[in-house]
Amino acid sequence: MPEVLSQPDAALATFVDRIRAGDVRALARAISAIEDNSAHAVRLMRALFPHSGHADVIGLTGSPGSGKSTLVDQLAHEYRKQDKTIGIVAVDPTSPYTGGAILGDRIRMQAHHADTGIYIRSMATRGFLGGLAPATADVATLLDAAGKDVVLVETVGVGQDEIDIVRLADVTIVILVPGMGDDVQTIKAGIMEIADIFVINKSDREGAERVEREIRAMQTLAIRRDDWTPPILKTVATEAIGIPELAKAIDGYRKYLEGKQLLMAKKVSNWRERLIEMLRKALLDRMMRERLDAALLDRYAREIAEHRRDPYSLVEELVTGTVAG
Amino acid sequence: MPEVLSQPDAALATFVDRIRAGDVRALARAISAIEDNSAHAVRLMRALFPHSGHADVIGLTGSPGSGKSTLVDQLAHEYRKQDKTIGIVAVDPTSPYTGGAILGDRIRMQAHHADTGIYIRSMATRGFLGGLAPATADVATLLDAAGKDVVLVETVGVGQDEIDIVRLADVTIVILVPGMGDDVQTIKAGIMEIADIFVINKSDREGAERVEREIRAMQTLAIRRDDWTPPILKTVATEAIGIPELAKAIDGYRKYLEGKQLLMAKKVSNWRERLIEMLRKALLDRMMRERLDAALLDRYAREIAEHRRDPYSLVEELVTGTVAG
Repeated sequence: MPEVLSQPDAALATFVDRIRAGDVRALARAISAIEDNSAHAVRLMRALFPHSGHADVIGLTGSPGSGKSTLVDQLAHEYRKQDKTIGIVAVDPTSPYTGGAILGDRIRMQAHHADTGIYIRSMATRGFLGGLAPATADVATLLDAAGKDVVLVETVGVGQDEIDIVRLADVTIVILVPGMGDDVQTIKAGIMEIADIFVINKSDREGAERVEREIRAMQTLAIRRDDWTPPILKTVATEAIGIPELAKAIDGYRKYLEGKQLLMAKKVSNWRERLIEMLRKALLDRMMRERLDAALLDRYAREIAEHRRDPYSLVEELVTGTVAG
Repeated sequence: MPEVLSQPDAALATFVDRIRAGDVRALARAISAIEDNSAHAVRLMRALFPHSGHADVIGLTGSPGSGKSTLVDQLAHEYRKQDKTIGIVAVDPTSPYTGGAILGDRIRMQAHHADTGIYIRSMATRGFLGGLAPATADVATLLDAAGKDVVLVETVGVGQDEIDIVRLADVTIVILVPGMGDDVQTIKAGIMEIADIFVINKSDREGAERVEREIRAMQTLAIRRDDWTPPILKTVATEAIGIPELAKAIDGYRKYLEGKQLLMAKKVSNWRERLIEMLRKALLDRMMRERLDAALLDRYAREIAEHRRDPYSLVEELVTGTVAG
């Protein structure tokens, strides 16, 4: 698949055309190239970027057990009723060793298989080299360039990485559920400020009112640069309850930002973060290409582990290009 | 506080001596410097590294509600009975905007206040620039150099970041609890391969046997490079049940690695990952210092958001030093 990306400009242009036409196989190939951190993926993204910028990018995050995937699926169907096309990127915590994907995702894909207006793809969380957040952002841009009207990015919302990912959306939705135990407060503290909209899913369960009260209490403490008060919505995703209201709330926040001329400010702020992540990745890629192959890295790691070399000096020497031996 | 770190070598040497003597205020200052990503922190770490390498570094991870902190506290007390000194680094998911710390942590610190053999410090999860994993690893090395016999690193175990952090320990413990709902399987898939020891905490609850069976079932699928079969221990941390057995299991894994001459291999593999993270951070720091101040970053972000500049070309130009305008 990357071979098509290494071909001359004419081949690249054809490939870009296929992606822009929403060709499912071309999309899958492009995403694999991004996931594999292939150098050709950069060429492709450069060609696609001018065609992006039209999709509504919506980030959704919630702890395991919050019914996040079902909610995302329901929301996708809601947008389909409005004749919008949808791209879904699901970021799953998978093995750092095998990079294996999660089975449930295949089942989800099959459920949507008949509808060509929905494209769903899961991203495996890889090891150190690639960087999950930049790859996910690239996939969102790719789906945007492929003409999707709405791009839904879903993550498990506990780690910093996952928070970073959903922060790059135009609108960020935090999903909570009643009765997750006392320690859930910890999660809430971490995600409080990234939520533009709160959803209490499984709201037919006992404790929904309590969760709402807790959010309200924390809201009095939060300071937002855009002066928005995030609404709290109640859903039962498995029964499609509250989904049209959620779509309306998303639209409401978007209109609020536009009305206050804040949407561009949000995009600028998002690009600032994204640019930094892209730089981190590109700088390391270049270092690995030019000055530090895997064998040398192994040797250094061994010397450090055996305390024959100090890693802090080594890193400085590598960065300044003055490394000895 | 960083002023002492910018003083001449004699002052640095005094500071290093105070840290090596376990001076609590010196430790706190040093950790703040690391958290703030201060340039002087590198100088300090370089001076401290030769004194590190003696502590047992134990990583513990578990979802919110797993009783992780209580378990870590109990384990610390267990080691205190063996006259070992302890350093605890608790990584909490806090606000990306405020970097604020979690209240509960202060309460924990007070509980240990009378015992100078335990030093506890929480790390706030910061924004993009610093990088949480390298900072946490540096703090572990610092506590090691400060003469702690055991360094316990605890994280919320869902995100990739948190997984990366505990992977850098000599021994990694994954804490599960009965009855966390159907979606917990997702977490297990992500952390299965990093666990050297499984702990089922709150094991007096219904469902402990089921969790154990599930772990056993997944173990038949896992392939470990060290051929170790992670034991599954049951604890009730609030009542100190199963804690001596846990300490024994940790020791058992360590002895297993030593017996098979695998401990050094594990340390080399850890340093390889850590070195890459250190490089990512150092490369970006240098770029920000030399070629990209905050104002310029803002300008680029705006140009990209307005689609007047393509970020993929920009990043390449920045990395190769050929950026125009």
